[in-house]
Amino acid sequence: MKKGKFIVLEGPDRCGKSTQAKMLLNYLITQGNDVILTREPGGTRTAERIRQIVLEPGLSVTAMTELFLYEASRAQHTEELILPALEAGKTVLCERYTMSTCAYQGYGRGIPLRIIRTLNRIATQNLVPDLTLVFLMSDKYFTERGEYLYSDRLEREDIAFRKKMRRGYLNMIKRTPNAYLVDADKDIMDVQTRVQEILKEHGI
Amino acid sequence: MKKGKFIVLEGPDRCGKSTQAKMLLNYLITQGNDVILTREPGGTRTAERIRQIVLEPGLSVTAMTELFLYEASRAQHTEELILPALEAGKTVLCERYTMSTCAYQGYGRGIPLRIIRTLNRIATQNLVPDLTLVFLMSDKYFTERGEYLYSDRLEREDIAFRKKMRRGYLNMIKRTPNAYLVDADKDIMDVQTRVQEILKEHGI
Repeated sequence: MKKGKFIVLEGPDRCGKSTQAKMLLNYLITQGNDVILTREPGGTRTAERIRQIVLEPGLSVTAMTELFLYEASRAQHTEELILPALEAGKTVLCERYTMSTCAYQGYGRGIPLRIIRTLNRIATQNLVPDLTLVFLMSDKYFTERGEYLYSDRLEREDIAFRKKMRRGYLNMIKRTPNAYLVDADKDIMDVQTRVQEILKEHGI
Repeated sequence: MKKGKFIVLEGPDRCGKSTQAKMLLNYLITQGNDVILTREPGGTRTAERIRQIVLEPGLSVTAMTELFLYEASRAQHTEELILPALEAGKTVLCERYTMSTCAYQGYGRGIPLRIIRTLNRIATQNLVPDLTLVFLMSDKYFTERGEYLYSDRLEREDIAFRKKMRRGYLNMIKRTPNAYLVDADKDIMDVQTRVQEILKEHGI
């Protein structure tokens, strides 16, 4: 039986979630909690080996194969690390979980969300986060930065992909219980203050 | 659109399906067919890399992770090799496919069949074989051989596992359209004669 709290940090690359996760880890430890910090894809030796295949240059991996590999990694991570920690009463902080797969493989690559949700339920054994914090930069910041940094066709496609994902995260925040948008444009300390407020509202 | 015929050879280890597959390949070629012979898990470079993880000694892989890895391998194999070959009008012979996963991970390891069937449908893009040949040795032969060869606890567990799978194959033959039990006790040439008879009954 699950006893500890499961807190997931989501958001696109470079939204600051790793920094916030480490600050939150320290905060929770100073509050006297028994906490572990982990991440996806990865988190266990087997999951890291799976990740190598996804990232191996020159290896042909279809969108659906990639989805199955991420779910394989999630199944291992959940059963080997997350569930035992929660059962032992620990707080588990995890960077990326099921919402990332919906954002990247679903909203991004176009695999139907109903397929991804089905695989997510199987891989997680129906475990859902007690709290999901979604770090997003504003559209304005994103666009300005994008127009400045990116110029060629591939980079423009990359911007289009990130915009689709962003819309996905916003949709998912609305339909996911206990999911919060955290404004990642702000100063690091202000973002962390907001994160700790949300936790307090949830009695964590 | 699929044009070629998809023929799957199933059955436990050492039932003779590789030998029969090669003989059938030669037969179909001499009949003027354009044929490829492939196998699972594997069949593509990516799928072979996935297989290495499943087989790596000392690496912890849960039953569900193993299932997802096999399905990742199947998704790649189906999209990269099997579907294009069928669309080009080729006959595809494949050693092991979805039925093996139901037999090993389902009847063998106890993962609910409804989960495996869901993942199979996603990984195959709903491709189903035109013909499934299931090679099984008789219970009598199997038991005699087992009692003679196996003695310690792990080996006895192995026998129990194989018996569960055998019952699984028999159940699946009943419920799968165009699936045939082929008596693998017989002489190699007699088995092949029976295989070719079944193909002729199907106009292949």
